[in-house]
Amino acid sequence: MGFEAAGVEAAIKYQNRKDMAIVYSRTPCKAAGVFTSNVVKAAPVRWDREAVSHSAYVQAAIVNTGIANAATGKQGYEYCKRTAEKAAQLLGIDSDAVLVASTGVIGNQLPIDRILAGVEKLADAKSDTKEAADDAAEAILTTDTHSKQAAVQIELGGKTVTVGGMCKGSGMIHPNMCTMLGFITTDIAISKELLQEALSEDVIDTFNMVSVDGDTSTNDTLVVLSNGMAGNPEITTKNEDYHKFKEALNYIDTTLAKMMAGDGEGATALFETKVIHAATKQDARILSRSVISSSLCKAAIYGHDANFGRFLCALGYSGVEFDPEKIELYFENDEKSILIYKDGAAVSYSEEEATQVLASPEVRVLVDMHMGDAEATAWGCDLSYDYVKINADYRS
Amino acid sequence: MGFEAAGVEAAIKYQNRKDMAIVYSRTPCKAAGVFTSNVVKAAPVRWDREAVSHSAYVQAAIVNTGIANAATGKQGYEYCKRTAEKAAQLLGIDSDAVLVASTGVIGNQLPIDRILAGVEKLADAKSDTKEAADDAAEAILTTDTHSKQAAVQIELGGKTVTVGGMCKGSGMIHPNMCTMLGFITTDIAISKELLQEALSEDVIDTFNMVSVDGDTSTNDTLVVLSNGMAGNPEITTKNEDYHKFKEALNYIDTTLAKMMAGDGEGATALFETKVIHAATKQDARILSRSVISSSLCKAAIYGHDANFGRFLCALGYSGVEFDPEKIELYFENDEKSILIYKDGAAVSYSEEEATQVLASPEVRVLVDMHMGDAEATAWGCDLSYDYVKINADYRS
Repeated sequence: MGFEAAGVEAAIKYQNRKDMAIVYSRTPCKAAGVFTSNVVKAAPVRWDREAVSHSAYVQAAIVNTGIANAATGKQGYEYCKRTAEKAAQLLGIDSDAVLVASTGVIGNQLPIDRILAGVEKLADAKSDTKEAADDAAEAILTTDTHSKQAAVQIELGGKTVTVGGMCKGSGMIHPNMCTMLGFITTDIAISKELLQEALSEDVIDTFNMVSVDGDTSTNDTLVVLSNGMAGNPEITTKNEDYHKFKEALNYIDTTLAKMMAGDGEGATALFETKVIHAATKQDARILSRSVISSSLCKAAIYGHDANFGRFLCALGYSGVEFDPEKIELYFENDEKSILIYKDGAAVSYSEEEATQVLASPEVRVLVDMHMGDAEATAWGCDLSYDYVKINADYRS
Repeated sequence: MGFEAAGVEAAIKYQNRKDMAIVYSRTPCKAAGVFTSNVVKAAPVRWDREAVSHSAYVQAAIVNTGIANAATGKQGYEYCKRTAEKAAQLLGIDSDAVLVASTGVIGNQLPIDRILAGVEKLADAKSDTKEAADDAAEAILTTDTHSKQAAVQIELGGKTVTVGGMCKGSGMIHPNMCTMLGFITTDIAISKELLQEALSEDVIDTFNMVSVDGDTSTNDTLVVLSNGMAGNPEITTKNEDYHKFKEALNYIDTTLAKMMAGDGEGATALFETKVIHAATKQDARILSRSVISSSLCKAAIYGHDANFGRFLCALGYSGVEFDPEKIELYFENDEKSILIYKDGAAVSYSEEEATQVLASPEVRVLVDMHMGDAEATAWGCDLSYDYVKINADYRS
């Protein structure tokens, strides 16, 4: 594919853990990105938006965890520049071809000397091995309990094209974007415009359908880098190849988004809500997100408690109009689907069976609106003691 | 004042606790009300909206806790009717002059025989003593840790007018309305139209500025009953007396709203956010509510952690546009105000002092937007282990 990676220990905030990563392409890439909608944007988000929009090419990304470099004023932005310049010098590329990304505590300045030392280590360590990719995926984590990677291959014009990605969660996660960093690499040949369009469209029903805690971070970043090394005929129109690529991208985004939701801070379960037969796609999105964002629904999942009224309640305050007498609500896992509510009241169901379903590691609430043909799925996690524990003393 | 009350044990869901209450006026009242904006409205909400709008007069309210009578279909509404009819018969008034209110688990039918037996007890027990009012305020509680009452007197046209109220929280609490039941009684003489207008205006900056967990309940109800027994010249225009009454009402609503926020499920602190110098009043409301609704801010308050980036972040995703470089952020309690953030970065402050302030039972975050003259205050509480505990097994 022509991509290399590394993850190293740079002691940014914690000792004895990998906390800086690089993603590097041997050849210049086209880049596309989506970034936090928060008015308070971290310095690296501002740096990357500029680079993705205006740089001639992008060829590397430097990531640190521990400190978010958000709410850090002019100095924070200056540190992005110095990081990119250091990497550019070591890699022999332009400094505006280097993306930077940070995640961690808001409001502290980066320890710039340790960052620059980390960049040196990364430039030395980068390689195209699986171990190096694993190191990078591990180095970008914060409170995540495991690393998140996905890859898929498709055939385009007789060439094998690979799309791979890694991301991290897992707190301050809420649509538009989540507190997440995500890096997708592909050797596909595609125009910059279509790369951005494919990404922007895809996140609507993937990463932006995830919520862990309703807080939209200052640092959310998802970038895709394509270096064209697969040798496929470059995609410059929305032809069949474009749609095949979009499918591959959707698979990667969906897989990573679900991993992120299921590994939300303190989570014991992936909590999925699928809304079907809604009047419009947007209604379906709003309804499903309202359920997975509700603290009370999340606590009910944690308690394996078929307290379906809370789910109904969360649909009801979503802002979408509907007739509560007409909808149906099911609790599901991979094996079973239990009808719970219909015709405006609970049906007769087995509490024991419902509790069993809700105790699964992947729980789904299915809502049939009986209003139209649109559907959407949102992903979250349960709300546990550990979420509170993690966040009551996150800085210590 | 001419009002009576009672609270009795009716074993609706739990034994050995008061769980039904009555509020009764010796003479017919004008009634005004505001109700949940949730599309899924509990049966008693639908009953009361009808009564407040169309009944010739209102004279009593019957309340039960334990079961919310929401998502209970036609039978649930029929049970409201039977409850009102029973009360009407015992009190010698019309059944459409009886309000009903319920709070508790959604989706279960009321045990109607025990409800009707409870109504008999209430009709017998009602009196105008302080003990009876205390019993009623206690009987309407769910997970609240203490009852919430307030009263104030004003002079109008040489007559003493009393405005009193009681309410309950404390989960499924979020603006428009909170999961709350509130009953305000007054002996003022005022037209029905102005009573409703005063109430509707006042909740915007009182009860609707409270959030415990972001969930807008199916049952939220706030009603005010005025029986005119104070003998003041009836208020039929927005004269000086009207504004005095509005002030009194605002005092009661604010007092009860703050009590409710501070006693949110699992709360260890009242968490207030005041936004000053915003461009518009609506901006100030949105910004302050965004902060007190944030799980991460709430967890930081619980941990006494001056993690100010989270507060900035919650302002940033509120939807209001502003320049993060221009705002100032302070942590305050009743004794101290500590500047934390200014000019786009943290100022030098003492972590120890900040932690001390955040450990107070009433914590305030003050945000100066430097944009205009508008201000607003919102009230919430911290997010603790106990919130999760209470809600993971609420039904058991």
